[in-house]
Amino acid sequence: MYKILPIKGNLDQIDGFFCDGIHSGLKANKKLDLGFIYSDTLCDVEAMFTSNKFQAAPIKHYKKYEKGFQTNFVLINSKNANALTGKSGVDDINTIFSSLSFETTNPIMSSTGVIGTPLPKEKIILATSNFNLSSKNGENLANAIMTTDAYTKTCMYEVELKDGKSFKIGAIAKGAGMINPNLATMLCFICTDAKVPKEDMQEALKLASFTTFNAISVDGDTSTNDTVLLLSNRKSQVYDAEAFTEVLRLVMHDMSMLIVADGEGAKKVVSFEVINAISNEEAQIAAKALSNSLLVKTALFGEDPNFGRIASTIGASNITCDEETLLISYNDVIVFNKGKPCLDSLQEINAIKVLKKDEFKIVCDLGIGKGAFTAYGCDLGYKYIEINTNYRS
Amino acid sequence: MYKILPIKGNLDQIDGFFCDGIHSGLKANKKLDLGFIYSDTLCDVEAMFTSNKFQAAPIKHYKKYEKGFQTNFVLINSKNANALTGKSGVDDINTIFSSLSFETTNPIMSSTGVIGTPLPKEKIILATSNFNLSSKNGENLANAIMTTDAYTKTCMYEVELKDGKSFKIGAIAKGAGMINPNLATMLCFICTDAKVPKEDMQEALKLASFTTFNAISVDGDTSTNDTVLLLSNRKSQVYDAEAFTEVLRLVMHDMSMLIVADGEGAKKVVSFEVINAISNEEAQIAAKALSNSLLVKTALFGEDPNFGRIASTIGASNITCDEETLLISYNDVIVFNKGKPCLDSLQEINAIKVLKKDEFKIVCDLGIGKGAFTAYGCDLGYKYIEINTNYRS
Repeated sequence: MYKILPIKGNLDQIDGFFCDGIHSGLKANKKLDLGFIYSDTLCDVEAMFTSNKFQAAPIKHYKKYEKGFQTNFVLINSKNANALTGKSGVDDINTIFSSLSFETTNPIMSSTGVIGTPLPKEKIILATSNFNLSSKNGENLANAIMTTDAYTKTCMYEVELKDGKSFKIGAIAKGAGMINPNLATMLCFICTDAKVPKEDMQEALKLASFTTFNAISVDGDTSTNDTVLLLSNRKSQVYDAEAFTEVLRLVMHDMSMLIVADGEGAKKVVSFEVINAISNEEAQIAAKALSNSLLVKTALFGEDPNFGRIASTIGASNITCDEETLLISYNDVIVFNKGKPCLDSLQEINAIKVLKKDEFKIVCDLGIGKGAFTAYGCDLGYKYIEINTNYRS
Repeated sequence: MYKILPIKGNLDQIDGFFCDGIHSGLKANKKLDLGFIYSDTLCDVEAMFTSNKFQAAPIKHYKKYEKGFQTNFVLINSKNANALTGKSGVDDINTIFSSLSFETTNPIMSSTGVIGTPLPKEKIILATSNFNLSSKNGENLANAIMTTDAYTKTCMYEVELKDGKSFKIGAIAKGAGMINPNLATMLCFICTDAKVPKEDMQEALKLASFTTFNAISVDGDTSTNDTVLLLSNRKSQVYDAEAFTEVLRLVMHDMSMLIVADGEGAKKVVSFEVINAISNEEAQIAAKALSNSLLVKTALFGEDPNFGRIASTIGASNITCDEETLLISYNDVIVFNKGKPCLDSLQEINAIKVLKKDEFKIVCDLGIGKGAFTAYGCDLGYKYIEINTNYRS
């Protein structure tokens, strides 16, 4: 048995990890735009990256390290993605790291922002000389990595095992735009002092991502820079595989939900539960199609129980389905029941009540098998257009 | 040799075809909402329907006829899609047709509008008694089938063969929302007096749809009601296979372009040309991904030469590509050249000039093979959100 306790703060609460965010001049108006995670001992590291074929320079740089490498430093910037920058994008990262005024081992870079513009490396090099490696300021780091995020995204847990020993795990993330089910476009940095074996790190990351980062959608676009990084300094000397798997999933779930809730202009977090599909795979296809459909998202924004768009999206997703066995509900309000629309005026009022909530679920019971998947999405309205019409400026 | 001449009017210009649109009470404010195509002789008919698994009742009704059937009547309504209406949706159509005050052979129905609401069949039956089957009023029909369309969509051609003989072909369509590359959500009625063999009708329809209706996108959603209907009364006694194939493609291209240009709130028609892909199939995947990407569409709305989103979308589409061979241009303005962004201030001004046009192309040269495909899409802005936030009301 073990207890998982949420505690205040973020990864700066973990012994041996230091972090901060500063202004380097990438963003205007003195906004924070550059940050770091520093560890006073070498950490094991595992990562998951975007499935985009045009992986950004920081990802190419990471992949040049030998498998099983250890690191003590992660440098993170916003405003410029250093993606589609060709070979010089990776050269720029090497130049930055060779110019640091302090020692690092196998430093990692992570970037987010506009694609296809050379990284202003001089600004970054100059600014790194202002880093204080003994800072414990995770909120500044969380702030520095934001792009169109409306707020910072962090969490922190302590896991107490039955013998009274404990380990910690925390995370900092950014999300907002370009969020898509296939490893949502985002950066997420997870640190722990658990004495987790290297092979468990990879396995637990992969397992947790399936129902968290890979189940969320804001706009269906997959960026060039998606990164989830897991660093472990093993300082607690404590580990329990089951507890670690569970708390890592919890951390990634927390970050996923904060990212969806902060989808550009989003007001609602909606769970799309597809159940009784012919297989889990087909349930996943349909659930993700729902969370990605523009017509579904705009109906959610309008708080309109337009279940026809939900049914139509399922039908268009090319899975096995039959309108004679299909049941659709908003929370517990059934609006379509096995071939029969049942949206009379009372049901409509009830459905609208659900749609006016900040969080609710849409359940699509296909009635033909035992497969299930839940995807998470948000509404999409004018604010999304406003943010994305001229993001570069 | 043959000549294809655009002529005024629409399918009402063809000998033997009659059509009109009236107000039946489905729409408010006396708007036209019900129409027909009547032929004074039996017509051969071919159709293509949506790939959505929840095909609307009119499609189920059509499919009950025996292969090779002939018809002389098509009834079309807007405002109600008669989709997700179960078995009673088809029963309603049979009731309507058995209540007509005039004789028809194998009548066809076609519907568009809100999904999941029973068809108000009494209103329709009552209104059909006001039909004048000798009307030649295609513009009224084109008007009656509109949903969120801003304008009617029609075209008409005469094809002169070298011996001076000629045949005619015309079309009426509606589009606007729920337009997606896999047979865009739309209704399109094409009539001809060409003496086209039945087997050529099917073949020519299929061939033409690949580069027309199946290459356009407004919002990436596929409706339950998509229908393309081709009727031939063979009255001209004239036929030339090559000319027919070409003019049918032209008719369908015209309708496709009008549909994209009238995408909900759209101001721009953009051709996404993917060239030198490893295969035509991969070029098609990438071109369609571009025409469907929300981030690309909002950047077009903002007239922002944010080529990073274009590259990122190609990379995310899971085709073979390499940033070192990729070239991206807006018309002739190259913005990314083989691993190097080239958007200096002069190029940016030139690119913005292109983006301010109503029509332009975005060329993505993958530089790795000989595959090519062109998809057609539009920008997406506030108006789309406004239209779709509360479409049912």
